[in-house]
Amino acid sequence: MTWVEIGPGEWPIGALPYGVFSTGGNRHLGVAIGRWVLDLHRAANVGLFKGVVEPDVLMGGSLNPLLARTPRVWDGVREHITELLSDPIHEPKVSPLLTELRDVQLHLSWQVGDFVDFYGSLQHAENLGRMLRPDSEPLMSNWRHIPVAYHERAGTVVVSGTDIRRPHGMVETADGVRFAPSQRLDIEIELGFVLGNPSDPGTLIRTASAHEHLFGVVVVNDWSARDIQAFESRPLGPFLGKSFATSVSAWVLPMAAVEAARVPPPPQEPEPAPHLRLADPWALDIGFDAWLKREGETPLRLSTTNASTLYWTAPQQIAHLTSNGTPIRAGDLIATGTISGDDPGSYGSLIEITGNGASAIQIGGRDSTFLEDGDEIVITAAAHLGGGSTASLGEVRGRVGMISPLP
Amino acid sequence: MTWVEIGPGEWPIGALPYGVFSTGGNRHLGVAIGRWVLDLHRAANVGLFKGVVEPDVLMGGSLNPLLARTPRVWDGVREHITELLSDPIHEPKVSPLLTELRDVQLHLSWQVGDFVDFYGSLQHAENLGRMLRPDSEPLMSNWRHIPVAYHERAGTVVVSGTDIRRPHGMVETADGVRFAPSQRLDIEIELGFVLGNPSDPGTLIRTASAHEHLFGVVVVNDWSARDIQAFESRPLGPFLGKSFATSVSAWVLPMAAVEAARVPPPPQEPEPAPHLRLADPWALDIGFDAWLKREGETPLRLSTTNASTLYWTAPQQIAHLTSNGTPIRAGDLIATGTISGDDPGSYGSLIEITGNGASAIQIGGRDSTFLEDGDEIVITAAAHLGGGSTASLGEVRGRVGMISPLP
Repeated sequence: MTWVEIGPGEWPIGALPYGVFSTGGNRHLGVAIGRWVLDLHRAANVGLFKGVVEPDVLMGGSLNPLLARTPRVWDGVREHITELLSDPIHEPKVSPLLTELRDVQLHLSWQVGDFVDFYGSLQHAENLGRMLRPDSEPLMSNWRHIPVAYHERAGTVVVSGTDIRRPHGMVETADGVRFAPSQRLDIEIELGFVLGNPSDPGTLIRTASAHEHLFGVVVVNDWSARDIQAFESRPLGPFLGKSFATSVSAWVLPMAAVEAARVPPPPQEPEPAPHLRLADPWALDIGFDAWLKREGETPLRLSTTNASTLYWTAPQQIAHLTSNGTPIRAGDLIATGTISGDDPGSYGSLIEITGNGASAIQIGGRDSTFLEDGDEIVITAAAHLGGGSTASLGEVRGRVGMISPLP
Repeated sequence: MTWVEIGPGEWPIGALPYGVFSTGGNRHLGVAIGRWVLDLHRAANVGLFKGVVEPDVLMGGSLNPLLARTPRVWDGVREHITELLSDPIHEPKVSPLLTELRDVQLHLSWQVGDFVDFYGSLQHAENLGRMLRPDSEPLMSNWRHIPVAYHERAGTVVVSGTDIRRPHGMVETADGVRFAPSQRLDIEIELGFVLGNPSDPGTLIRTASAHEHLFGVVVVNDWSARDIQAFESRPLGPFLGKSFATSVSAWVLPMAAVEAARVPPPPQEPEPAPHLRLADPWALDIGFDAWLKREGETPLRLSTTNASTLYWTAPQQIAHLTSNGTPIRAGDLIATGTISGDDPGSYGSLIEITGNGASAIQIGGRDSTFLEDGDEIVITAAAHLGGGSTASLGEVRGRVGMISPLP
């Protein structure tokens, strides 16, 4: 189906994820195929997209110009890339534009506009409610009525592989409130949606039209400093406990590549308000595995979870986000919130896995709760397309590798 | 002191605020002087900034390229503009670059990076605490330890004069939860700081160095839908109740123009943590007047308040914001939070002025609480420089002028 040689575990022709890479010089937009990246900048520059899209759209060193266009353009570009890589007639022109992935540096694929983090997993919301508010109902009274969310910091979204600094912050200790390195550094396994096809202010995007603004998916690790978050969050929500870093996978996998992973979402009770209702409900059967790698120890699988268990769906989140007239910009990012299933093996954060630090996990025969310096977290994800076929979303990895130079 | 004719109430040579304007064609960066705007794009293009700054910095149609530079460049550009407008030798070259303000359209002066809204007024936090949590201490236990804040939406920051749509949202009513136009549309009088001189990840910006990242000030109206906000905010803070719009003044007044308005801030008790301490504390004596204009009625002054009453200062807010290693980008915006003084005449929001809607204000002999369709809010601000001299920040205005076309 493609003239490119595809080895096992390499990017297939059905994936074609977008990324931004460099080989010492300028950043170029590219598409992964096999163990290669196709340089879209150079391809556009030599006229390979003539009649498909203006070359500028592929030559900005970022996905944003493409995100600013419509699904028709997205589809046209994807079809043309598929054609270039399928018909051997194109090989002489295209193969010089392939660079081995091991020879390139990957960068954040797009400039993030606004970043909204949802709280879409019922199990996660209940788990946190039980731990943090043991004397109340685990679920807040608004949770089943709206996809609860907050804005995170766009400027600290970093590409997979970026080392993560353990943040300092104001935390409450037995000795009072003090400024100290976080002792409760955590992960959150999430699915991210990269948005595009800008909408007009004052337009509610209907759930049935939400797909027109969903460009693709990324794997997200929403690093969280639980002690900083706990002290700061009332009454305006999380701020510095989250803003130090959010890691995303380098490759943005277009929605077209995960279309076949659509499955029915869990039932919703009560029925959502009319603008949040779904004529044709869909979730994505995307499985995640999170690994903790500690030097000298066997990697520990922390969680195996699945986005299909999320209560609130992406179309509902987009309808909610725009329901007050807020427009979508090219490059906005929404994340699902931590994905936790029913059993502890599918919890998406260490605070849940360890029962708020009460029950340690074992690594190399030693008790551990939150992240230690040097720990690396690797989250992989793959969409299940039916018939045993899968589409990889790649991975997001980050090491608690740098001690902050703060006081 | 300047060869430009300056009428009463017009922009003086000591102000020189930056703005972005157009006269039918492209957007150009400019500086206001008298009743004119000096076209910095054209000035740079004809070489008037040779030896001062690369022309590109002034020719992007946005303040961002200048924000990306250092205070040394900011000062150099400002000094040179002052020179161009002061020495009559420059008049022949410069006067053709002046356009009357009444002939230009003003735009948002810069692309907002991340937008953080603080909660810096003790009186405002206490007023809201008393109203919204009557059975608890008005102030949360964290409030005096950290400058509490949250991220707002950068993509819906709009320039003064932009009409504001009344947002729809999910609100709790006697009949249950429903999706409806907000009935409690409110204002928040705030001072905004436009940030620049990007910092490195992992760097805590000391309170004593914070001024190196403060480019200038704007007047902010942080429109708030109290009913939407009340239902959605637990536990992750405000989201759609704020994200529909935040208005800022068109002109960014450089810090140099308000330097002389520095006054001691209120005392802080307990003493802040070391990284939030101030060797040389300063607040800004900037007075605000907020007016409600309703068609056919005499404009009503809603509030006269002053930024010098704010408990948390901008240097502390920047130290806090970066204390977890978060870098500053060119174009980040921080806002002080609603500015409320001790007496009701100085409250910065309608929820405070009306006691959460319990005590109406009178307009044209009729009771009123929150904003009605057609209402226009105008907030003016001026820095008091000592000796009776003032520096205007201009105004931010917005009319609840468009009914949202949502269902």
